[in-house]
Amino acid sequence: MSIDNIQLDKQGCLKHFLTTEGLSKQLLTSILDHAESFAGVSGRPIKKIPLLRGKTIVNLFFEASTRTRTTFELAAKRLSADVLNIDISTSATSKGETLSDTLSTLEAMHCDMFIVRHANSGAAQFIVRHIAPHIRVINAGDGRHEHPTQAMLDMFTIRRHKPDFTNLKVAIVGDILHSRVARSEIHALNTLGVSEVRVIAPNTLLPVSVESLGVHAYQDLDDGLKDVDVVMMLRLQHERMRGQLLPSEYEYFHRYGLTKARLKYAKKDAIVMHPGPINRGIEIDSSVADGSRSVILQQVSHGIAVRMAIMAMAMGHVSEKEGDET
Amino acid sequence: MSIDNIQLDKQGCLKHFLTTEGLSKQLLTSILDHAESFAGVSGRPIKKIPLLRGKTIVNLFFEASTRTRTTFELAAKRLSADVLNIDISTSATSKGETLSDTLSTLEAMHCDMFIVRHANSGAAQFIVRHIAPHIRVINAGDGRHEHPTQAMLDMFTIRRHKPDFTNLKVAIVGDILHSRVARSEIHALNTLGVSEVRVIAPNTLLPVSVESLGVHAYQDLDDGLKDVDVVMMLRLQHERMRGQLLPSEYEYFHRYGLTKARLKYAKKDAIVMHPGPINRGIEIDSSVADGSRSVILQQVSHGIAVRMAIMAMAMGHVSEKEGDET
Amino acid sequence: MSIDNIQLDKQGCLKHFLTTEGLSKQLLTSILDHAESFAGVSGRPIKKIPLLRGKTIVNLFFEASTRTRTTFELAAKRLSADVLNIDISTSATSKGETLSDTLSTLEAMHCDMFIVRHANSGAAQFIVRHIAPHIRVINAGDGRHEHPTQAMLDMFTIRRHKPDFTNLKVAIVGDILHSRVARSEIHALNTLGVSEVRVIAPNTLLPVSVESLGVHAYQDLDDGLKDVDVVMMLRLQHERMRGQLLPSEYEYFHRYGLTKARLKYAKKDAIVMHPGPINRGIEIDSSVADGSRSVILQQVSHGIAVRMAIMAMAMGHVSEKEGDET
Repeated sequence: MSIDNIQLDKQGCLKHFLTTEGLSKQLLTSILDHAESFAGVSGRPIKKIPLLRGKTIVNLFFEASTRTRTTFELAAKRLSADVLNIDISTSATSKGETLSDTLSTLEAMHCDMFIVRHANSGAAQFIVRHIAPHIRVINAGDGRHEHPTQAMLDMFTIRRHKPDFTNLKVAIVGDILHSRVARSEIHALNTLGVSEVRVIAPNTLLPVSVESLGVHAYQDLDDGLKDVDVVMMLRLQHERMRGQLLPSEYEYFHRYGLTKARLKYAKKDAIVMHPGPINRGIEIDSSVADGSRSVILQQVSHGIAVRMAIMAMAMGHVSEKEGDET
Repeated sequence: MSIDNIQLDKQGCLKHFLTTEGLSKQLLTSILDHAESFAGVSGRPIKKIPLLRGKTIVNLFFEASTRTRTTFELAAKRLSADVLNIDISTSATSKGETLSDTLSTLEAMHCDMFIVRHANSGAAQFIVRHIAPHIRVINAGDGRHEHPTQAMLDMFTIRRHKPDFTNLKVAIVGDILHSRVARSEIHALNTLGVSEVRVIAPNTLLPVSVESLGVHAYQDLDDGLKDVDVVMMLRLQHERMRGQLLPSEYEYFHRYGLTKARLKYAKKDAIVMHPGPINRGIEIDSSVADGSRSVILQQVSHGIAVRMAIMAMAMGHVSEKEGDET
Repeated sequence: MSIDNIQLDKQGCLKHFLTTEGLSKQLLTSILDHAESFAGVSGRPIKKIPLLRGKTIVNLFFEASTRTRTTFELAAKRLSADVLNIDISTSATSKGETLSDTLSTLEAMHCDMFIVRHANSGAAQFIVRHIAPHIRVINAGDGRHEHPTQAMLDMFTIRRHKPDFTNLKVAIVGDILHSRVARSEIHALNTLGVSEVRVIAPNTLLPVSVESLGVHAYQDLDDGLKDVDVVMMLRLQHERMRGQLLPSEYEYFHRYGLTKARLKYAKKDAIVMHPGPINRGIEIDSSVADGSRSVILQQVSHGIAVRMAIMAMAMGHVSEKEGDET
């Protein structure tokens, strides 16, 4: 772990959560362990613990995403925090205010945490460097860079089904080039010690020298799926369909869409994941998405617990138990 | 009561509230009785009871309505629930996600109740059939079909002024053809045993064979109002004015607008109702809307209590008292 | 103090906060004193007191302003109130409902307080005259008229740095003609007894006979700044730049922009204020906005405490202490 990692404090505890890159196996495991202690909360009759009562958490969304905003809002409310939703595209920035000034203003209002979604890679890091040290930042997706809470809920879901990462072969299928989810997943999987990470995509949707990220690249879906334990599908952006990168939805599904027949190449007990929202019939067939090996909805449920854990850890809380004592 | 009524559990208790049709007199009366126990909450210095603390209620609005959304949001907050407002027209469905997938996702987030507003008739029923059985659904207006919470707050308001339904003559005036409110009211009034339900409208705004709903149809306002105890005005949609259905606002008001002179045909102590928002000078004259026989603002107040009661009953709570003990 | 001031009850206590005009020095000082008792809340680990628990506060914004709405929402949540955000431009008024009917409806829902932002001067007063007496109204900016909570947070910030108002010379610089902030500030400064209030602007941005407000007018920035203790900059509206009122941004900055060199004309320990959002390089240079004499971010922080105090006072609460006892 790099000692100047801005995500950690001097004791190595999580302050911000911007990227899975550069975090230790111990820290990632600790996030998963904490999430286990929060996973029960949403199943209780009263789905709320007072851990972050009186804290102000701001959903600072420079790019609209009802789905992601909702998961963070729910996680924050179940921790009893006050939540402000700020759609920054319609706010003061449009009056000519700089981003720094918007941040300073929210800081002066004694906000405790920013959940940041932005179209530009590195936006969350930029924000950390420009705000007071007591404010915590969680990256909810920055451009093509990272979406680390999505990666951690994926790791949590894998661990629930396959407790030992070191024996696993994992395939990530789809638009690797533009996917912040893929990037965060690759770092997390390698750090957690899976035996092999594969990426499967047409050449036009693979980053140059992708293997330097610690993955094996495949252009053929059947080859890539052989004997894998986990299949992680990526969402295909519709707008990429009408371009030079991809021929047609029909042809993409024909070559890279996950069907029951294709899934047979994977191990018998392989699980199928997708970050949602699903394009049925484009990257995945409904029979697979809704089939017995799909854990897609479990990912959503785990997303709340994992985000509660990350928020609580960044605010200096070690376990869910603590909250009950308040 | 049909035994396969999806609104009820095996004990005949309310699970969902989709339509007033097919519910028993006993059940409708029970909703009104519960609402009485909640009616006092909004008048207290602390307008809040902890009955639904830690529950997650989602306002799932596929059709914008600030007014209706606000009443449900207030009712939920006064029951101490956490509320998520999701304007579905701007969310993931626009990214190509199916409605079923949106619902499954919210279900996986452990939401407890959906308040659904949709432009299509039957949308709330569709949703009940596609989600997990522990999630409760309340119809906040589906197309031309039903708006059952509006009907129940109307029944509550009538009962406050005229405790014995069996002696009442009630007239519903306006665009019966397109009104989900009218449909819900007609079912509720007949089930509660009023002696006569009348609908008053031009022929073009009456459904074919409307009398099969258990009403008497009138095309003449003065005739229809004769000796009624309750006058329920409907809101006229402006867009219907420029079409073949209606000549002009002026002529509509001339023939069907409720004025003081017209109201004289009703009983001396008749009450005047309207679901709001009012079109003054189109379906109702200001002197009547603001007059001593208008109970329009009482309807709004009762709307909070009735919605609190329905939410609490659907979540398995029997009375407001329970909440205080938590 | 005028005895028919609609802002006060018969005992002279604050009921509504619409304008700083006509309020006594004693009352303004009392607001500042209360705000002191709330200033500590936002610095606590649990930034919340139960003073307004179970109260319903409505942000009734007829004119969008994320920044102002956010400060009121935060202040209300830190007082434990339930907050409804209603963007009235997209709500029932667009369905032809009158403003009076919208207000009556919210009143019938047992809302306790309206925070009103409106493009028309006098809108908040109009609302007070049309609603039930138990509902309290706070003006969050009405046309060119007043923005009294902004003025009070400015007074609070001044007093923190310069406790004795009677010795102060204060200059307000910029578009006095269109500024609701300037109007509210001028009344408050004069009532609190500052020795001199100056306004500095080009002739086209000064109201006719501005000196009748109790100020000295200057067209030259250097002259106006001489020996002042406080410099209050105003935000320049971009749209005013392309008109007959102002030549160009460049020339405006050249003549009225606050730079370090210009600031030398003021007293050595003068403070620099701005209501935000800042137009850097138009009305103020970054070296001044971010410099040691700028108290701009303190204004934002104080804004929460001052708004908490005003809300609590209007709801009949005398001090922050009271809340802790609940």
